[in-house]
Amino acid sequence: MARVLTPRTEDYPRWYQDVIAKAQLAENGPVRGTMVIRPTGYALWERMQAELDSRIKAAGAENAYFPLFIPEAYLTREAEHVEGFSPELAVVTHAGGKQLAEPVVVRPTSETVIGESMAKWVSSYRDLPLLLNQWANVVRWELRPRVFLRTSEFLWQEGHTAHATEADARAYARKILHETYEDFMVNVLAIPVVVGRKTAAERFAGGTNTLTLEAMTGDGKALQMGTSHELGQNFARAFDISYSSAAGTVEHAWTTSWGVSTRMLGGLIMCHGDDQGLRVPPRLAPIQAYVMVVKDGDGVREAATKLRDALRDAGVRVALDDRVETPFGRRAVDAELKGYPVRVEVGPRDLADGNAVVVRRRDGGKTPTPVADVVGAVRAALDADQQALYDEATAFRESRTTEVATLAEAIEAAAEGWVRVPWSAVGEAGEAKANQSAVSVRCLLRADGSVPDAEDEPDLYAILARSY
Amino acid sequence: MARVLTPRTEDYPRWYQDVIAKAQLAENGPVRGTMVIRPTGYALWERMQAELDSRIKAAGAENAYFPLFIPEAYLTREAEHVEGFSPELAVVTHAGGKQLAEPVVVRPTSETVIGESMAKWVSSYRDLPLLLNQWANVVRWELRPRVFLRTSEFLWQEGHTAHATEADARAYARKILHETYEDFMVNVLAIPVVVGRKTAAERFAGGTNTLTLEAMTGDGKALQMGTSHELGQNFARAFDISYSSAAGTVEHAWTTSWGVSTRMLGGLIMCHGDDQGLRVPPRLAPIQAYVMVVKDGDGVREAATKLRDALRDAGVRVALDDRVETPFGRRAVDAELKGYPVRVEVGPRDLADGNAVVVRRRDGGKTPTPVADVVGAVRAALDADQQALYDEATAFRESRTTEVATLAEAIEAAAEGWVRVPWSAVGEAGEAKANQSAVSVRCLLRADGSVPDAEDEPDLYAILARSY
Repeated sequence: MARVLTPRTEDYPRWYQDVIAKAQLAENGPVRGTMVIRPTGYALWERMQAELDSRIKAAGAENAYFPLFIPEAYLTREAEHVEGFSPELAVVTHAGGKQLAEPVVVRPTSETVIGESMAKWVSSYRDLPLLLNQWANVVRWELRPRVFLRTSEFLWQEGHTAHATEADARAYARKILHETYEDFMVNVLAIPVVVGRKTAAERFAGGTNTLTLEAMTGDGKALQMGTSHELGQNFARAFDISYSSAAGTVEHAWTTSWGVSTRMLGGLIMCHGDDQGLRVPPRLAPIQAYVMVVKDGDGVREAATKLRDALRDAGVRVALDDRVETPFGRRAVDAELKGYPVRVEVGPRDLADGNAVVVRRRDGGKTPTPVADVVGAVRAALDADQQALYDEATAFRESRTTEVATLAEAIEAAAEGWVRVPWSAVGEAGEAKANQSAVSVRCLLRADGSVPDAEDEPDLYAILARSY
Repeated sequence: MARVLTPRTEDYPRWYQDVIAKAQLAENGPVRGTMVIRPTGYALWERMQAELDSRIKAAGAENAYFPLFIPEAYLTREAEHVEGFSPELAVVTHAGGKQLAEPVVVRPTSETVIGESMAKWVSSYRDLPLLLNQWANVVRWELRPRVFLRTSEFLWQEGHTAHATEADARAYARKILHETYEDFMVNVLAIPVVVGRKTAAERFAGGTNTLTLEAMTGDGKALQMGTSHELGQNFARAFDISYSSAAGTVEHAWTTSWGVSTRMLGGLIMCHGDDQGLRVPPRLAPIQAYVMVVKDGDGVREAATKLRDALRDAGVRVALDDRVETPFGRRAVDAELKGYPVRVEVGPRDLADGNAVVVRRRDGGKTPTPVADVVGAVRAALDADQQALYDEATAFRESRTTEVATLAEAIEAAAEGWVRVPWSAVGEAGEAKANQSAVSVRCLLRADGSVPDAEDEPDLYAILARSY
């Protein structure tokens, strides 16, 4: 079989680009840094959205929509914030056929508009907590774009909440971190994210605490998959989000924000992809079982159609490929590229023996299976491979994580993978030094793996790595 | 009870604004012409999306995402098209901290980018039909914005398809018109849309046929709720979407496009709203039954919670309001404003008799109902009121539609409502004359109400009206 993709060991970035192109996930858009998300890629994003959205709603947040355009003045409201964004802003200067009196900015986040709205909508403690979420496109101009990982426009969800107390805000930021994001990433994406606390240097500007979920990519780097921020009262002060308490005093609210984006598609590719293409975890997969007519023959189409129907009735997301005018080999390669978890191949030879062939994308295993047993075999394979992908990714992460005692060792070992090192051996100065070698502190963890409440807790570990 | 809304008969536009503000559906955004869609309004949009999206997928179209930014040059590709849009375009001239070499336009539609992509993705007849859809925000600068009806940024779906033959394209544009849009509007929105063909003057620029769905608003005007266009080969020629046929010749494809937007939220308000606020048809309603604790008392909260659970178990979308610290009257007015189809009021007095009160939003009817019968009563009310809202809107439309024989009568009668007049009595010249009186031809219909294949079919009727 001709080589379809550049092998990962030969050129990992090239492999990544190849998968995106050959699996028809996305393409570059006509304006530099933008992307066209093709149906195969967008179906993955829709599944991510559906799984996340139900968890976000279960956490009590309500969806809303805020405008694409923001008055330039809004972004000077919170000075620290603007400094972070201004080189990334896209500015509309002309509209309605003439120059605008005041230019407007294309939202890099809706934080400021949402802050303004919150200030209007909150007056009493009874209005709190106010739990908002938005699914939208945002723009941050990228000079070195890479599809899904860094694009000038991307799709995301941004949650913004306001609470009466610091404890409530803290608890909510954690709830989203664990019950929404970690649960989704572990149980749907099958990605063993490490969940920890960012250092002060890596923290979101204007926040008091950034919590992060970090995935290991197939080349041993780290990819930040999502963040949940506590913003203290900083943001509420900047936008005057205040409320009258039950005692009658006027107080500033405590706010949080949290987001994940189409960047997760990059994480999905890099965590589970192999040299044949994408491997989509069954619980995420828009198509879990791909029933293929190998070629026409006695009762083949009929048997394939019945299997498609039986799988659908059993609750499996299934598609039928009966395009026999396209060579089977080409279709099979395409199915591997797209990473459908299970293929059910129905051809005249096997069918004469009463069999279809169940092919598992995870390990390529092919099992001739009596037609009557196919539904059960497919369901068992989907369950097993959801777990197996997670276990494989966990084993890989562990095999590429080194435990060291000093900063010098950490920087050296980070060339090969992740490093676990006592935070006391790094510190702020060590962090700056690591950065000079393109190594960053991904997060801080307690010895038992739980998330610290503060950077200066004793006996914390830091995860250092190169990152995307 | 104090007056909450301006009555419709007193000032219809003011009533419309009042409903949007008081029911907390939306607000103006900080940049003129933009809107903030609040959770109550956005939940309606999400339900519209879900119902439409499943119908769009059933019609075989796949979702994808195309970039927000379009090179200015793309919009000069199809001259007729640009002429229609240029005063409406928002232009980004600065990004990445400097002036762009080539300004980019914020998409007024993704038509041109999708055309470019289609040209790349289609090469053989085997690639056809190509059926794409996108959910996205678009920008068309508005000098006289009105929330939901005309905003500088709005949310929509735009479908774009390419076919091998004119017959296929024509059939698909009709399929979307009837099976996706009409089915949704009639059966979910409970709006008796009139479905017809636009005249040449009202047709989408560059298209060969525009099919439309028109709703009557509470003030007897017309609101275009959606359109489905046949574009012939015009668009395929402009973007070079061509394919090699089975016979080996190279042919241009035949394309369609079709869209509906957040404008439908305006239609929903104006078709079903009354002087107490919104009335949401049960099949659309994010909250179908609103269980209210009237005030605390023996077993009241427990009974309300049990009813909430029983309704949820019966498949009803339900919410519990136990905020007894807010006066009941205020909460009831708010529930009316938001148009929940059914309220279930649970208070100590009725409960002592074993009853809860089932209140129907459509006609305000209140029925004390034994607690054990509430689920059945709610389900019956939801079914009945879905139909009753449709029937009411149909009766209203008929009562405000006049049949006349001449153009002069038509223009006069259009001051009060819709007019049905033989198209032969209007014609192109008559249409221009009607336009001078702010009356437009909404669509052409056959005598039996079906959609004509051509403007010059004999015995067509025209619907004339003032419009939004």
